[in-house]
Amino acid sequence: MGKEYHVAVVGATGAVGTRMIELLAETSLPIASVRLLASKRSAGQEIQFKGQPLIVEELVPESFEGIDLALFSAGGSISEKFAPEAVKRGAVVVDNTSHFRMAKDVPLVVPEVNPEALKNHQGIIANPNCSTIQMMVALEPIRQAFGLERIIVSTYQAVSGAGIRAINELKEQAEDFLEGKPVSEWSAEILPAGSDEKHYPIAFNALPQIDVFSEAGYTYEEWKMMNETKKIMGDNKLKVVATCVRIPVISGHSESVYIEVKQADASVSAIQELMAQAPGVILQDEPSEQLYPQALNSVNQKETFVGRIRQDVDVKNGFHLWIVSDNLLKGAAWNSVQIAETLHEMNLLRVPEND
Amino acid sequence: MGKEYHVAVVGATGAVGTRMIELLAETSLPIASVRLLASKRSAGQEIQFKGQPLIVEELVPESFEGIDLALFSAGGSISEKFAPEAVKRGAVVVDNTSHFRMAKDVPLVVPEVNPEALKNHQGIIANPNCSTIQMMVALEPIRQAFGLERIIVSTYQAVSGAGIRAINELKEQAEDFLEGKPVSEWSAEILPAGSDEKHYPIAFNALPQIDVFSEAGYTYEEWKMMNETKKIMGDNKLKVVATCVRIPVISGHSESVYIEVKQADASVSAIQELMAQAPGVILQDEPSEQLYPQALNSVNQKETFVGRIRQDVDVKNGFHLWIVSDNLLKGAAWNSVQIAETLHEMNLLRVPEND
Repeated sequence: MGKEYHVAVVGATGAVGTRMIELLAETSLPIASVRLLASKRSAGQEIQFKGQPLIVEELVPESFEGIDLALFSAGGSISEKFAPEAVKRGAVVVDNTSHFRMAKDVPLVVPEVNPEALKNHQGIIANPNCSTIQMMVALEPIRQAFGLERIIVSTYQAVSGAGIRAINELKEQAEDFLEGKPVSEWSAEILPAGSDEKHYPIAFNALPQIDVFSEAGYTYEEWKMMNETKKIMGDNKLKVVATCVRIPVISGHSESVYIEVKQADASVSAIQELMAQAPGVILQDEPSEQLYPQALNSVNQKETFVGRIRQDVDVKNGFHLWIVSDNLLKGAAWNSVQIAETLHEMNLLRVPEND
Repeated sequence: MGKEYHVAVVGATGAVGTRMIELLAETSLPIASVRLLASKRSAGQEIQFKGQPLIVEELVPESFEGIDLALFSAGGSISEKFAPEAVKRGAVVVDNTSHFRMAKDVPLVVPEVNPEALKNHQGIIANPNCSTIQMMVALEPIRQAFGLERIIVSTYQAVSGAGIRAINELKEQAEDFLEGKPVSEWSAEILPAGSDEKHYPIAFNALPQIDVFSEAGYTYEEWKMMNETKKIMGDNKLKVVATCVRIPVISGHSESVYIEVKQADASVSAIQELMAQAPGVILQDEPSEQLYPQALNSVNQKETFVGRIRQDVDVKNGFHLWIVSDNLLKGAAWNSVQIAETLHEMNLLRVPEND
């Protein structure tokens, strides 16, 4: 019998962490033990794992003694501080925050797209941004077949991407609305960005701000999509621009993606065929039957759903796609567990020796 | 004292019709009388106009006897049948449905953009699609200053565009959700398109279908935006593609608009300056203060709000805008009343004599 892994989940009580624990219960990865870690405030909580109660422990550097694999999803500052502590103690870290994503020696991986990047890992592997991942799963087969010149994406992102408190905020505001409370009396404390100064209602609204504003008028979320896409596809000349928008959906990110391909022989039917065969993709594209991806239908599914594929009426190499996936699963927890499974299959689930 | 007009509102009990009546109460148009028309089912209802109760009458051809101006918003088939009856009896028709929009002898007008098109009217003037109007108000000043090469738009449209029943459907589904009812038990009978076969929940969802599907995989709503934009701007070579999406918002359409301009000297600050001065536009674009247009804030406002203006990071003549407006007002009722006011000011509020 081969090696079994001791696994830690950091941020075990969060929206993503709880999904990671569920996925670890059904993973192909051989698991010897699971350790649940969180802030002091959440320590002591009981969470079921394969029918056994596990107690959430407070995260400290020593938490990683004996750990082989640590899945992090507790915010960038926690990863910054504790991921090196985990690696130092021999654990491979799969980090779901943005903290290490653009670091040169950290692979940024979507297993369907660039698993070979895992070979160069130095102990930390970054999980891309949720909205980036689902777009990569759908676009990579198109890039390989026809080349990719540019991407213009507008997102329709769910509140669960901002955590459990954002979900509760949406629910409470929806209740306030149905009870007839004026908008000015709704409580808004989290969205659009917890760390930002002003907060706005999300119920029955659309907020064109996800994360804080950064250079050139783009938000940090938009820069993530733009930079991460280039890194994952390994193409710095690819043109990518994004507009990231939060809408009142609990889970399931939708994306209106416009692409221009390089080769002239691309067609709607050829792209549909690619999507039908692409790993991790489910094609839902039958206008005559009103079949297209929907956020509500994507919940609890690991796949990325693609539909509304159509050609630009004026620009021959331009195509639209509507791409939907559960942001907590393929966008976060599932992609992280999938990275761990892939590391195991490639015999890379160990911290490389320092030379 | 000049002429005072006898005005009819067709579809007086609908989401748009009720807003038309409110706007007629405060219009600069000199009004002698208002007649409210609707289906037999709605006849007999009482609606207040300037503090007076008006009784809704059943729409018949003779309803237009003595009428100078008829505002239609009761569906395409009603306009098809009754608009000619109104014109025959000497009424100028401002039609809010899509029925006459692309007809050659029917001006399609956004008063801030192409008022001169009114000069050629033959009795019927078409009000453009809600999602088209707000985009035109914002983009026309840019087209005039820098030329417009292409538009790629993704919409975030409110349910009120589909009428009062769609609003109620969203509210009921939101209640069902908050009460813990599984999605499969929510009632969905209107959206995405009342006349289509299948209906899907809109609460906590995003539906990439507005109106029925048409040629080349585009919906009729998408074709409306594409065709109407070319007609209003009078530029058949303008490249326009649209993805139209319904989101759980009551009122206020948002749009993620990407444009490429012709001239190389365009800049974010120049476009911001244009928007600050454009008629009917309010610039809300201060990322450092988290100021940008929001659907919830647009409700009951006549203006179109523009923000998130930024340049493409790779394509020098590419720019993003986030354009928001109350779809029932500038997108429908207000644009219609504004057309009537403009006809009056241009001395065109009469049916031309047949030669």
